Order: sequence, then structure tokens, then C-alpha cells
Amino acid sequence: MSDALVCVRDYELRARQILPKSVFDYYFSGADEQETLRDNVAAFKRWCFYPRVLRDVSSVDLSTTVLGQRVSLPICVSATAMQRMAHPDGETATARACLSSGTGMMLSSWSTSSIEEVCEAAPGAVRWLQLYIYKDRGLTQSLVRRAEDAGYKGIFVTVDTPYLGRRRDDVRNRFKLPSHLRMANFESPDLAFSKKEGYGEDSGLAVYVTQAIDATVRWQDIGWLKTLTKLPVVVKGVLTAEDAKEALKYGVDGILVSNHGARQLDGVPATIDALPEVVAAVAGQVEVFMDGGVRMGSDVLKALALGAKAVFIGRPVLWALACQGEKGVSDVLEILREELHLALALAGCRSLKEVNRSLLRRPELISRI
Amino acid sequence: MSDALVCVRDYELRARQILPKSVFDYYFSGADEQETLRDNVAAFKRWCFYPRVLRDVSSVDLSTTVLGQRVSLPICVSATAMQRMAHPDGETATARACLSSGTGMMLSSWSTSSIEEVCEAAPGAVRWLQLYIYKDRGLTQSLVRRAEDAGYKGIFVTVDTPYLGRRRDDVRNRFKLPSHLRMANFESPDLAFSKKEGYGEDSGLAVYVTQAIDATVRWQDIGWLKTLTKLPVVVKGVLTAEDAKEALKYGVDGILVSNHGARQLDGVPATIDALPEVVAAVAGQVEVFMDGGVRMGSDVLKALALGAKAVFIGRPVLWALACQGEKGVSDVLEILREELHLALALAGCRSLKEVNRSLLRRPELISRI
Amino acid sequence: MSDALVCVRDYELRARQILPKSVFDYYFSGADEQETLRDNVAAFKRWCFYPRVLRDVSSVDLSTTVLGQRVSLPICVSATAMQRMAHPDGETATARACLSSGTGMMLSSWSTSSIEEVCEAAPGAVRWLQLYIYKDRGLTQSLVRRAEDAGYKGIFVTVDTPYLGRRRDDVRNRFKLPSHLRMANFESPDLAFSKKEGYGEDSGLAVYVTQAIDATVRWQDIGWLKTLTKLPVVVKGVLTAEDAKEALKYGVDGILVSNHGARQLDGVPATIDALPEVVAAVAGQVEVFMDGGVRMGSDVLKALALGAKAVFIGRPVLWALACQGEKGVSDVLEILREELHLALALAGCRSLKEVNRSLLRRPELISRI
Amino acid sequence: MSDALVCVRDYELRARQILPKSVFDYYFSGADEQETLRDNVAAFKRWCFYPRVLRDVSSVDLSTTVLGQRVSLPICVSATAMQRMAHPDGETATARACLSSGTGMMLSSWSTSSIEEVCEAAPGAVRWLQLYIYKDRGLTQSLVRRAEDAGYKGIFVTVDTPYLGRRRDDVRNRFKLPSHLRMANFESPDLAFSKKEGYGEDSGLAVYVTQAIDATVRWQDIGWLKTLTKLPVVVKGVLTAEDAKEALKYGVDGILVSNHGARQLDGVPATIDALPEVVAAVAGQVEVFMDGGVRMGSDVLKALALGAKAVFIGRPVLWALACQGEKGVSDVLEILREELHLALALAGCRSLKEVNRSLLRRPELISRI
Ligand SMILES: Cc1cc2nc3c(=O)[nH]c(=O)nc-3n(C[C@H](O)[C@H](O)[C@H](O)COP(=O)(O)O)c2cc1C
Ligand SMILES: Cc1cc2nc3c(=O)[nH]c(=O)nc-3n(C[C@H](O)[C@H](O)[C@H](O)COP(=O)(O)O)c2cc1C
Ligand SMILES: Cc1cc2nc3c(=O)[nH]c(=O)nc-3n(C[C@H](O)[C@H](O)[C@H](O)COP(=O)(O)O)c2cc1C
Ligand SMILES: Cc1cc2nc3c(=O)[nH]c(=O)nc-3n(C[C@H](O)[C@H](O)[C@H](O)COP(=O)(O)O)c2cc1C
Repeated sequence: MSDALVCVRDYELRARQILPKSVFDYYFSGADEQETLRDNVAAFKRWCFYPRVLRDVSSVDLSTTVLGQRVSLPICVSATAMQRMAHPDGETATARACLSSGTGMMLSSWSTSSIEEVCEAAPGAVRWLQLYIYKDRGLTQSLVRRAEDAGYKGIFVTVDTPYLGRRRDDVRNRFKLPSHLRMANFESPDLAFSKKEGYGEDSGLAVYVTQAIDATVRWQDIGWLKTLTKLPVVVKGVLTAEDAKEALKYGVDGILVSNHGARQLDGVPATIDALPEVVAAVAGQVEVFMDGGVRMGSDVLKALALGAKAVFIGRPVLWALACQGEKGVSDVLEILREELHLALALAGCRSLKEVNRSLLRRPELISRI
Repeated sequence: MSDALVCVRDYELRARQILPKSVFDYYFSGADEQETLRDNVAAFKRWCFYPRVLRDVSSVDLSTTVLGQRVSLPICVSATAMQRMAHPDGETATARACLSSGTGMMLSSWSTSSIEEVCEAAPGAVRWLQLYIYKDRGLTQSLVRRAEDAGYKGIFVTVDTPYLGRRRDDVRNRFKLPSHLRMANFESPDLAFSKKEGYGEDSGLAVYVTQAIDATVRWQDIGWLKTLTKLPVVVKGVLTAEDAKEALKYGVDGILVSNHGARQLDGVPATIDALPEVVAAVAGQVEVFMDGGVRMGSDVLKALALGAKAVFIGRPVLWALACQGEKGVSDVLEILREELHLALALAGCRSLKEVNRSLLRRPELISRI
Repeated sequence: MSDALVCVRDYELRARQILPKSVFDYYFSGADEQETLRDNVAAFKRWCFYPRVLRDVSSVDLSTTVLGQRVSLPICVSATAMQRMAHPDGETATARACLSSGTGMMLSSWSTSSIEEVCEAAPGAVRWLQLYIYKDRGLTQSLVRRAEDAGYKGIFVTVDTPYLGRRRDDVRNRFKLPSHLRMANFESPDLAFSKKEGYGEDSGLAVYVTQAIDATVRWQDIGWLKTLTKLPVVVKGVLTAEDAKEALKYGVDGILVSNHGARQLDGVPATIDALPEVVAAVAGQVEVFMDGGVRMGSDVLKALALGAKAVFIGRPVLWALACQGEKGVSDVLEILREELHLALALAGCRSLKEVNRSLLRRPELISRI
Repeated sequence: MSDALVCVRDYELRARQILPKSVFDYYFSGADEQETLRDNVAAFKRWCFYPRVLRDVSSVDLSTTVLGQRVSLPICVSATAMQRMAHPDGETATARACLSSGTGMMLSSWSTSSIEEVCEAAPGAVRWLQLYIYKDRGLTQSLVRRAEDAGYKGIFVTVDTPYLGRRRDDVRNRFKLPSHLRMANFESPDLAFSKKEGYGEDSGLAVYVTQAIDATVRWQDIGWLKTLTKLPVVVKGVLTAEDAKEALKYGVDGILVSNHGARQLDGVPATIDALPEVVAAVAGQVEVFMDGGVRMGSDVLKALALGAKAVFIGRPVLWALACQGEKGVSDVLEILREELHLALALAGCRSLKEVNRSLLRRPELISRI
């Protein structure tokens, strides 16, 4: 009974017990002193609900669309690399759980199940590819092509990772993939992150990124990417109004306000705090999403009230996979759905359309001490 | 001596030792991460007294009226369900203690002593019924009728509970009533919360609410309730100026600013922080009360200074019952009276009429770190 | 070496080990939850120094006057009751230490050495009497007369104690004077706080105050007091601009901004935070002093920069007495003198005249977390 | 592996284990209650990065000039006294590490390797002398002359130390130099801090300063110093706009915003908080530097964004020396270089010229709780 998994935090605590230390560390870590890591979660608490009562909330509709695809709840799964370290079924388990919960999944370029495997595991599901732009542009183009062929519905191109953020525990652990796993979208051991040597005393993944990922990428390259595909293109990793406007100029189809789960530059704002200015700058021209620190239904409601079309979750899926594979991911999605349903009802909203900025206030003073 | 119970907190600590875990958890818990639970108490500390000296405070009058009934102090007892889990005498003990202290008691719809039993236990006392609106409107109406018949002086209709808030420990404990107890106002095991099955792996009470309580209730239903009775009707659970104004439109006789002891939607403001805007919106047209986090005489004085006619206390009564039954409740009420008397005198006030907003300031900066 | 007493805090820690629990508790306690007790000390940290450099601080003059009496440093000793509980020599030791350090001492009405004994112990020293106004006005008048006769230089009349604040540990301990001691200024056991019975389960001192001290006192009584004596009269316990102006109307000769060491009404502002508005209201017409939470030379400098003519210290003297009697008090005064000297020099001030508001800023944001 | 030294904090923790307590205490301590000590580090966290993306950060140039000397990164070494207590090679190890990392070193007047020894250990390096103005002005002048002769590139004259700040642990430890060491720039035991007696129960160094250092120094003496030498003169220890303007009047060549590592007057602002107003007052007329609390590459980026030309580090070098001598210092400098490189790239800057105020915001509310 004390073992019950009743909220996302329970899954995290359990996963910490189950996973090998270096895997848990890789999943958990933020950059440097992890200030932003803590703040991604804590920042939600700085927004207060001002709920309305007596509104007939006997039925509450949580469905919405993301880039034109219908989802049964405004909570999708963000790209997290190398999910087979958490559970043997890895990304295929996540895919099946998303399908059964009626939501969308973003697959990492660095998945340990290939673009095609994930497609086969859960045919007909809503799926997007997270794209890293490699120095090898032909390879980059082929990833996009394969996603199109496998019926993916969009490309989320990550723009916050010209180099990998410094995650101290990964340096200490000299983090590498376990030897039985590889990044499944690539052929050569170099690109599949399955070399046995050459990473020195650093985080293996940091070295991999420096070697393989293109740090020269500029806004023009978003233009280039748009020419490669008819799929919607979303930039993942924007935190400022300035870059949001730049993105609009280059014709993106959506913006994901993200700080990469606080894993890149420590000291950036919590994403929930960065969201409002991006929403204001975009002024409804494209959909705005957010990820980072979402752990409860009420976090989701706050993000929606501040203008996000939907939110994405990263680590909660990893903890769920580690605990119980596909069932774990399903259960976590259902817990979040239940919490979100309750939060809407108790706030007096009958559907996502009724959610707006008036639900929230940010107390001038700290009200949480 | 170290065992002395000299303040409300002492009763809480003692009760934690005495009560079975699942009962203590039920009484203690707030929703979700319990942010608002902590803040209900902490928020009082963010208001500072600016006391006046040399005012002849040799006598201090604490008496006032609540909905037209005289009480000897502005501290009444709020509705808390199922008090016989704390002490065999349950609500009847509370009723006797309130009578002897000269204050009013709000009886929960979900009491383990019936409306009539409580009346007989302490005849002539000031009492109100807390009302949940059931899907079965006939049943709802009969609760009101029985309260009228038993001489209750008003109806506090709870408007913040279309569903039960998610209290994690109750889910973990699969909270149910002990088998020898039942909600005493209802006949069938279904409504008396004494079924043995059918609550699955959830909090039994959450399931009960979903099954029995009407989530369609709207402001119009307050109008309906007013047609059922001549008793004053107070809405319990308003947190915003907007809803306060709505309440006035529907002819309520009072507003109880409450977040249900932080048990419904986590992340709402502390009630002491929500109070001023409701007071301003109501502008003296009806009486405004508050509950949530009141633990000391000085908390009461702060609420009165911000415009409450009186405050209600929930958990302190449960801890007192658990420790010493009727005597415990009496003692807690007397401790609070003594503390309030002292706070008024030291602030330079000779009666509640002299208490006003000028007593308090909210430091622009945090002065409590 | 680790036993060295190098700052006031070291004396407090040592005293906590040495003193009987109920004595330490009585000395240490603040009212209720001790919020203001902590804040009296913490509030100083919320003011930042902006020091000036290159000012020739080879000599720094710390001397000043208090109510016309010259003192070698702007740090005097406040009235704390019953000092013989800390050390057999009690108030006479304090008096001797003050004389040798060249500063003034305020003797409590509730001293365990009489007005005359203290005078004889340290003839020629600067001394003031702290006065409680008793229900017995003749007795009150005789205290003033005795102080005049014994060469005291002023009367500090305490205005924040119509009743004793609720100090929970004193209630738990049923605090009484040890049987070999008595309040030395009074004859009858009733007034000398040396009765053996009659204090019930409460703090004995709280009951004593209710029985003996006059809770009817009003501003007019300050006028009465002025008619009794030619000595300067200072009101001790003012926290607001309003009361400061009232005091000026009644012809006081000084105002001591004090919250009685946070022992009366919990939740009032720290005295250092209340000081500026009193200074502003008084506008130089009389001297303004402060006490509460002064533990370091830099605290003193902050109080002076905010307009205090001098500060008083309460508990530090008790800890010093407990550790080492007269020597302890002398050492504490010399540590504070040394710290204050250093703070002035490092801030770029060569005398108290150069200390002003421009030395300090209050950061808009919390800079101490 | 868990022993890996991957950030400055790791070196501090290791050094705490390695060093004799009184040496660690001397290196670590701040003045009084060490509020500013903590805040020097914590204040950096109150500034948030707002990074820009997609900027081609494949190459990032960290080089700059300090007082006309080219350095490969904007992180120089500040003066810290008596480095041979940390490692037998002391200042000579630091000098060699700075040379190999291509950065500048400020040598303390109180070094345990002489001006000339340090020069010989790392010929051709960029070096400056930190100067204390002694009562003996001839001696002071000779220090300047020796620095010129040994090819030092400037004088940093410390203006915040007319007396030594009160560091409680040094008083407790009666801090002295170990008997095999001396301040190597001075002949007589008196000035070399190698007397065996005469420091009483105080910090030996505090007594030394009172005896030897000139507390009469005024701005005019900066003029005098300028007449002694053609080298650039920087004032070290300015915290206000007022003193910055004063410094400009007296013709200084640079200003080092410093609070002496929080070792002088406790309660002054963190240096990163004081920096902006000095930068504004100086308005580009001379170079502005800062030291205090720099522990990570992102701290450096914040200081540069707020207008510092370069930063200096104190304690990190001591911890590095204690752990691994010259190699330690080299490694720490390379860690900081790597972190700074990454921070710039992830913030979207390709060189220090692109770093400006728009990178940072100070959230109106605390976002770090
Ligand atoms: C272990 C882990 C791996 C990640 N891998 C990727 C990735 O391959 N590509 C990417 O764009 N973002 C990646 N992210 C960032 C996530 O997409 C997402 O932005 C972040 O996890 C959201 O924050 P949350 O974990 O607090 O929900 C990763 C995050 C984590 C925690
Ligand atoms: C154990 C418990 C049971 C409660 N039961 C009810 C109830 O049946 N009906 C209701 O309207 N409020 C109920 N409440 C809310 C209280 O009426 C009241 O709003 C709240 O307890 C006040 O906060 P406090 O406990 O901090 O004083 C309950 C609260 C607690 C703690
Ligand atoms: C143990 C104790 C006894 C006190 N007794 C008296 C008293 O008899 N009369 C009075 O006016 N104030 C009394 N005070 C208040 C002090 O005069 C003074 O206002 C307070 O101690 C200052 O705060 P500090 O202790 O933080 O320095 C007492 C304070 C303490 C701690
Ligand atoms: C152990 C130690 C010794 C120091 N010695 C000197 C000194 O001799 N002269 C001086 O001007 N500053 C001295 N400082 C101050 C440093 O130059 C510098 O301002 C400070 O260390 C920067 O802060 P940080 O240690 O947080 O980096 C010393 C600081 C420390 C910690």
C-alpha cells in the first residue's frame, strides 16, 4: 500500500531505486548546479489559481489538436534519448502507451528503437520526429525522409544544442551507452554512439555531440529544413520573444518553449516563466507548446492558462518506463489525465476553451514561504 | 509538564501520536502537493501588526454576532466530517463544548452523529448545517428540512466540491470509514459511506463523492436552495471577487471565504490572502467569514482586521477531540479566546469594533526570512 | 580554543548549557510562535551597507550622549528583569561592568537587586529606571522618588505591557522566581513575586502582571508621570509613527522603539524595521533609541544610520552574566565596541556624526537567500 | 570516479579534507556572520540568462585584454595571501599555471614567494602586484619599484583594508603563519609576519595589520602612488558609484569591484550586485573588473554581461593549489575556460564582444525558491 504509485513523484522515487546509478544520473541531471532544473518544477508553484465555482462541471472535455492532429488530452510525450536503458522495450513501449491513451509522441533522433520500429509497434498513432542537425547534412535529410515515409506528422528541430550542456554527474560517470544498446537510427558505431573508445574522461555523449552535431546552424538552416519536407516544422528550445519572432520570419509551424529539461545552459528561466512572453510575441500566428517540469495536472492547467496549446513531458515517461514499461507509461498518462480533469473541474472550466489567463495570478510577494 | 497542551499545535502533535495513521492522514491532508495547506498557515505570518499603546485595555469585549446570533467570541467551529473517528462522542462532544464556550458550530452533512442527535446533545446552542447538494435533490431538501426542524440557524452550502480533491495519502490508504461508523444522516449504506465494496484502489470518499454528489450545480441552484428555506444561506468556498459578486446576485446571506482547508484544488491562495478582495467586493452587503489555517488568537485578529465578521476552525477541533473529547474542544476554544483577548489588548483594541485594517501592514519585502 | 567567546552568539550558546532550563527559557523566549523574535535579529540582514573607502579612519570616535549624559559608546544596557537568576551578583555586576565600560544601564522595576543596591555597587555611573505603572499608584510614585534619590538620570516607562505576552515555555514551566530570590524593590511577597502559591497552571509572571500592573494606563498617565518628576521621561515600546506623535504631544523626552524583545505581541515588525518611521515622525524633536535583536557592532551601525541616537541590548547581557558575571558583561561590551569601531572604519566613518542614511540600502529583492 | 574533480566546488570539498583546519579556516572565512560570503556566490543565481539560439557558435573567441595585456580568457587570478600554506610551491605554482593557461596573475603583497621569485618561476607572464600601503611609505614605494623592475604590468592597490575584517575563526584559532613560512617580500620578522609573540588572543594577522598598515590613507594617496610609477594603477575594493567617480578624479587606470572576498565588512552587497552601478558611473572611461564568488563559467558570463572587462578569482586557486599544486590551478583554469566557452555558445555569443546586458534579466520575483 505504501508502495502505491499515485503521482509522478512516486514513479521518480521508485525509478531511482531501480535504475543503475549512471542511467538514473543521465536521465535526472540538469546542467551545472541544476538551478534551472529545480526551478522548472518550482516555478509552477509561483502561479496561483483563482478558481470559479458553481459552473456545472459534470462533464469536462480535455481533447484538443496539436499541429492539426487530434489528441485526447493536451499532454504529449517529449523526445528523450535512449529509452531502452530504462526498459527493454524502450521507445516501442512508450509508443504503444501513447496510442492507447490517445496522445502524441515525439521520438528522439537518439532513440534506441528506430524510426521504423516505433512506427510498427504502434501503427496509426500520432508521432513526430525530434531532429538534431548533423554535420552530415545528407544524413540529416535522410532522417527527415524516413520520418515522412513512416507517417510521422511533423519535425521538432532542437535548436538549443550546438554543444551538450555540462551535466556533472555524466562527466563523473564518463557516461556511455550500455554495450548492448545503440542509437538505432544510425549505421556506423561513430554515429550510433556505440564506439568503445575515444570519449576520454568526459561525458561520452558530450564528446559525441561535439564530433557529430553541427554547431554552425543558423536561422537560415531552418529555411533549408522547410525546403526538405512538407511536414510541419517546430523549433524546440526557444526561450525569448526575440527568437520567437525570428522563428516566425523563417516560417516555422510551431514553437516549443523548452530549456531541454534544464540540461543545456543552467541559469535560464523556468519554461513556465518564459512561456508568457513567447505567447505574446507569437500572437496566435502558430501554436506554442512548452515542456519542462510538468509533473501534475495542475501544472498543465497553468501552462494552458498562460497560452500553451499543449505541454510535453520528458522525465515522467522515463520513470514510468523504468518502473513498469508500457503499463507504467499508460498509468502515468492516466494519472495526469485524471489530475488535469479534476483541476479543470475544480477551477470551474468545462473544456480547454474555457481556460484562460484570468485563472492565474502571480502574487507580488512570495506566498510560499 | 513537557506534556502540557498550551497551544493548538500541541494538540496536533499529540493527535498525530494518538490517532490511527489513516484517520490522522484523512484529517490532516491537503490536496496534491499540499502547497496551499502549508500556505494557509504561513500566509498569516506575512501580515504584520502595527499595535497602538496606552489605550486602557483593562476590559476587552470579544463578543459579536454571526448571522444574527450572538456568540461570545468571533471563533466558530467549521464543518469537519466524521468526527467519531477522533473520539467516540464525535460531533456531540463538539456541540457540548461549543455550547459551554458560547460559540456556534457548523455540522457537516457527513457527520457521524445525526442532525437530531447533535441537537439533543446540546439543546439551545447556535448551530448551522453544512450542506452538500446531492444528485438526489429530494434527499438534499430533506437535509435542509431536518435542520430547520432541529433548530439550526442557517445553511452553509459548500460550493467547492463538485468532485473530491486528490489527497494522495487517502488514495494510498484507500480511505474508508471504520466499519463501526457511518455517516449518520443517511439511511442506505451507499449514501452512509458504509458499503464494504466498490471503491476500487482509490480513496473511498473520492469515489463516494463522484457517485453521490451533484457536479452539475450552478448559481441557479443557490436560488433553488433559497426557495426551500427561510434560514440564512451562506456559500462556503468562494475565493474571488467575481464569485462574491455572483453570490450577492443570487441573494446569499453570507460568504465564507474558504479553500476547504486546502483539500480541494492545490495551488489556490491562502484564505487570508483571498479575504481582502472578497471583503472589498461585498462592500458590507452581507457578512463575510473565513476559515483555513487559523491556529492562534493573532490569526483571528488578522482576519478580523481584514474584514471578516468571524472565523471558523476545522482541524484544531479534530485534534482537540482526539486528545480529550469534549474537554479538549473546550480547552482549545478557551486557549484561542485567551490568545485573542491578549492580542487585542496588546494591539490597543478594547472591542472588535475597534479592530480595523490600520492594524496591519504587509511588508513589501519578505520580513520573515 | 574552540571554547573562545568571540561574539555575542558564543555567549548565548554557552549560557544555554549553563543555565537551568526554566531560567534559560524565561530569558530566551519570545511570545507565541516567536516570529518576531527571529525577525528582530534577521531584519538587520535585510539592510546592506554601501561603504566608502579612503577616508583616513586612523581614529574613530564612538562617544555620544544619551538624554544629556555622555557615554563612551552608543550601546547601553536595557532593562531585563531578575538578573540574579543568571549570576549571584545580578544587577550589581551589570552596573559595575557598565561603569567600567563607560556606558549607561537601565534598571528593571523587577530587578533582584534594589534601586539603592545598584547605586551603591557602582557609584557615579549613568543609570535610568525602567518603570512599570502599578495599579497601586502610590507605590509607582515611590519607585520614581527612590530613583531620583539614588541619582538615576531618567525614567523609561514601559508602555507595551498592560498584560504579559504569552511565552509558551513559561506556561509549560509554570515559571516562578527561585525561592531564594525576590523582586528587590518591593516589600510584600505579592509584589516581590515571591509568593509560593496562587499562580495556577500558568506562567507565574503572567498572573503577577494581571494582578499588579495597571492595564488602564493611557497617554494621560504619561502626563501624570511627568508631573511626578523632573527627570527625563522616555516611553519604551513605541512601534508606530502615530504613537510617536502622540508621545510628543504628551511631552516625553525620548522614545525607545522596542517590541520588548519580541516578548509581547508576536507578529509585530522587527524594531529595526519600525525605527525609520518613528525617526521620521519625531523629526529630531526628541532623541529616538531602539532595542531588539542587536547582536553585533554592525547592527548598531545600521540602527544609527537609520536615525537612532543609541541602541540598548537586553539578552546579550544576560548571556554574559550567566557565563562570567561582571567580567562577562564587560567583555561583551568590549566586543561590541571593537566590532562597532571596525564597522565604522570599514564603512568610511570617523565618528558617529558621519553616520547617516546613505550608508544603507534595502535591496528591492531578497539578497540573502 | 566519485573522486573526480569536475568543478570548482569539488576542489573546495577536497581542500577542506586536506588542509589543516586553521589554514582552511583562514582561506575560507568571511567577516562576522559571513552573510556577504554566502551572498557573493548566491547573488549570481538571482540573474537569469535569456539565451539566443541558431547563431553559428562553431567557434567562440574568449580572448580579451586586461590593462592592455592580452589574455586568452577573461578570468585572471586575484591576490590571495600566503599561498605556500596550501602547497609547498605556493605562488610560483600559481604563476606557472597562469602562464600556461595564458592568463594574468595578481600577486599579494603578503605572498610567501617574493616578487622576484614569482617572476623567475614564470618569466614573460602577465602579472600585477597587489599593494597594501604600509605606514612605512618608503617600504611601500620599494614594493612598487621592485614590481616594476620584475616586469609586473600594473599595481592593484587595496583600498578596503585600513583594518582587517573580523573573521571569527581566525580569532578562535589565533591565526599565525606556520613557523617555516614568512611573507617573502619583507625582511624584518615584524613585517614578515613571522614574529613568535605579540599577537595576544586575537587573530595574529589582524594585529599585524593594525601595527603595519596605514589606516590614514585617503584619495590623495592614490595621487601620490600615481607619481611613484608609470604602471597602471587600479583601485581594488570599490563598491559604490560615488567612490568610482572619486577614483576617476584621481586618475586611476581601472577599478576592481571587490569586497575582498567578503572578508572585510560583513553586510556589504555581493560584488555582482554592486557591479552595475560602478559600470554605469565609470561610463567606459577606464576598465572595470570584479571579483568575489566566481565559481563557474556562467558566473563569468554574467559579470561580463553586466559590464566587467574581466573577472578575478581568489579562493578557487587556493583550493586547486591545496589539491594538486600547479596542475590543480591549471585544471581549474581549464574547467572554467571550458564552462565559459559552453556558456557563451549556448547563450548564442561568438565572442566577448557579443556579450551584453540583454543576455540577463533579474526576475522581479524570486525565481529560485
Ligand atoms: C534523459 C533525457 C534525454 C533527452 N533527450 C533529448 C533528445 O534526444 N532530444 C531533445 O531535443 N531533447 C531531449 N531531452 C529534452 C526533452 O525533450 C524535454 O525538453 C525535457 O525532458 C522536458 O523536461 P522534463 O523532463 O522536466 O519534462 C531529453 C531530456 C531528458 C531528461
Ligand atoms: C477532516 C476534514 C473534514 C472536512 N469535512 C468537510 C465537510 O464535510 N464539509 C465541508 O464543507 N468542509 C469540510 N472540511 C473543510 C472545513 O469545513 C474547513 O473549511 C477547513 O477545515 C478549514 O481549515 P482548517 O482545517 O485549516 O481550519 C473538512 C476539513 C477537514 C480537515
Ligand atoms: C529576560 C528579559 C526580561 C526583560 N524584562 C524587562 C523588564 O523588566 N522591563 C522592560 O521594560 N523590558 C524588559 N525586557 C525587554 C528589554 O528591556 C528589551 O526591550 C529587550 O530585551 C531588547 O531585545 P534583545 O533582548 O533582543 O536585546 C526584558 C527582556 C528580556 C529578554
Ligand atoms: C585567503 C585569502 C587571502 C586574501 N589575501 C588578499 C590580499 O593579500 N590582498 C588583497 O587585496 N586581497 C586579498 N584577498 C581578497 C582577494 O584578492 C579577492 O578579492 C577575493 O578572494 C575574491 O573572492 P573569491 O575568493 O570569492 O574569489 C584574499 C582573499 C582570500 C580568500
